[in-house]
Amino acid sequence: MADPLRLGVLLSGGGRTLENILREIDGGRLAGLAEVAVVIASRHGIRGIAIGEAAGAGVHVVRRKDYEKVDAYSEAMARLLDEARVDLACLAGFLSYWIVPERYAGRVMNIHPALLPSFGGKGMYGHHVHEAVLARGCRVSGCTVHFVTNEYDAGPIVLQRSVPAYAEDTPERLAARVFTEECEAYPEAIRLFAEGRLRLADGIVHIDESGYQRPEGA
Amino acid sequence: MADPLRLGVLLSGGGRTLENILREIDGGRLAGLAEVAVVIASRHGIRGIAIGEAAGAGVHVVRRKDYEKVDAYSEAMARLLDEARVDLACLAGFLSYWIVPERYAGRVMNIHPALLPSFGGKGMYGHHVHEAVLARGCRVSGCTVHFVTNEYDAGPIVLQRSVPAYAEDTPERLAARVFTEECEAYPEAIRLFAEGRLRLADGIVHIDESGYQRPEGA
Repeated sequence: MADPLRLGVLLSGGGRTLENILREIDGGRLAGLAEVAVVIASRHGIRGIAIGEAAGAGVHVVRRKDYEKVDAYSEAMARLLDEARVDLACLAGFLSYWIVPERYAGRVMNIHPALLPSFGGKGMYGHHVHEAVLARGCRVSGCTVHFVTNEYDAGPIVLQRSVPAYAEDTPERLAARVFTEECEAYPEAIRLFAEGRLRLADGIVHIDESGYQRPEGA
Repeated sequence: MADPLRLGVLLSGGGRTLENILREIDGGRLAGLAEVAVVIASRHGIRGIAIGEAAGAGVHVVRRKDYEKVDAYSEAMARLLDEARVDLACLAGFLSYWIVPERYAGRVMNIHPALLPSFGGKGMYGHHVHEAVLARGCRVSGCTVHFVTNEYDAGPIVLQRSVPAYAEDTPERLAARVFTEECEAYPEAIRLFAEGRLRLADGIVHIDESGYQRPEGA
């Protein structure tokens, strides 16, 4: 069996997505397949830092405002990933824009709480997304795991899962319903990556599903 | 029991959606609830005309090119709906732009073969939609029933249903999968309208589901 995939998890908040990834590593579908090598937080004092420390991962805080230029900031981020020998960086509620260097192309994933290309782009994060979905009166929303490129929410899609949305929903209720699916989609995408089943061609992610049972609803 | 809802069906092609509506009227979920009062085709020689005639509906051909201005064209359309005492006009693969007059506001529906607001707008119809979905590498697509306003695909959403999409799909295979859901969503939306369960507030359609079992997957 190959060594576990070394994950770098980037976060800006409560660390719920990191918790979910850790849960899947600890006896779930990522057991033996992945480990969290490093956590990078975009600010001090957030719960995600404590989650990472409790899991025994190296935790760093890298603040955008400590760098004049985005290039230097991005390079500082990438160097931390290098040092931790990260195979795959996972954005997990990470709100700071950084430029993915060429050596990490195809090795940075994000999860977006809507069905891209709807409700993506700059400023579309967290509750803003769910508010926009409800303001449009959508009956279906969902989540999208995608590779990160240097354009907001425009990278190749790995997985999407849908949920119903209702006119009577609050953004909080819709967010909770979407998050349940995020907790399925992100580990599943990481697993596919760890198993070498993802192939990128012409901006499209192809999934090698040989010998693979597609999970219900995916 | 109230009189059946009088439908006007507008089409530009093969009439598959009209066929589906007729099937639901003839012993399906629209039995006793709706009838096709008139069919308006945007050109001669299309199969949808024969479908409408076989069903005993009045069929008219109104061609955009026979009118200099869109206003006169639109008014000619609306007059035919008036004459047939149409309660609800259903666009069913109708590709000609017309202006919905004020007296039909909230009484014209369309079905779009994607999950709006993704893949909507001018030029996004038929195979163009499915090609765009696959070119973006989406894993989820679907269909949207919405009220028609005078902006392409921007009107209030009534129902949406999702389907999986795969990198290996052809536009034809995806279209067939979406069409299966269209055949559920459109009759369901017409039924909700016929039963007076749709209420429009602030651009959002609220569904009165009192005593109503939500169908699986909706």
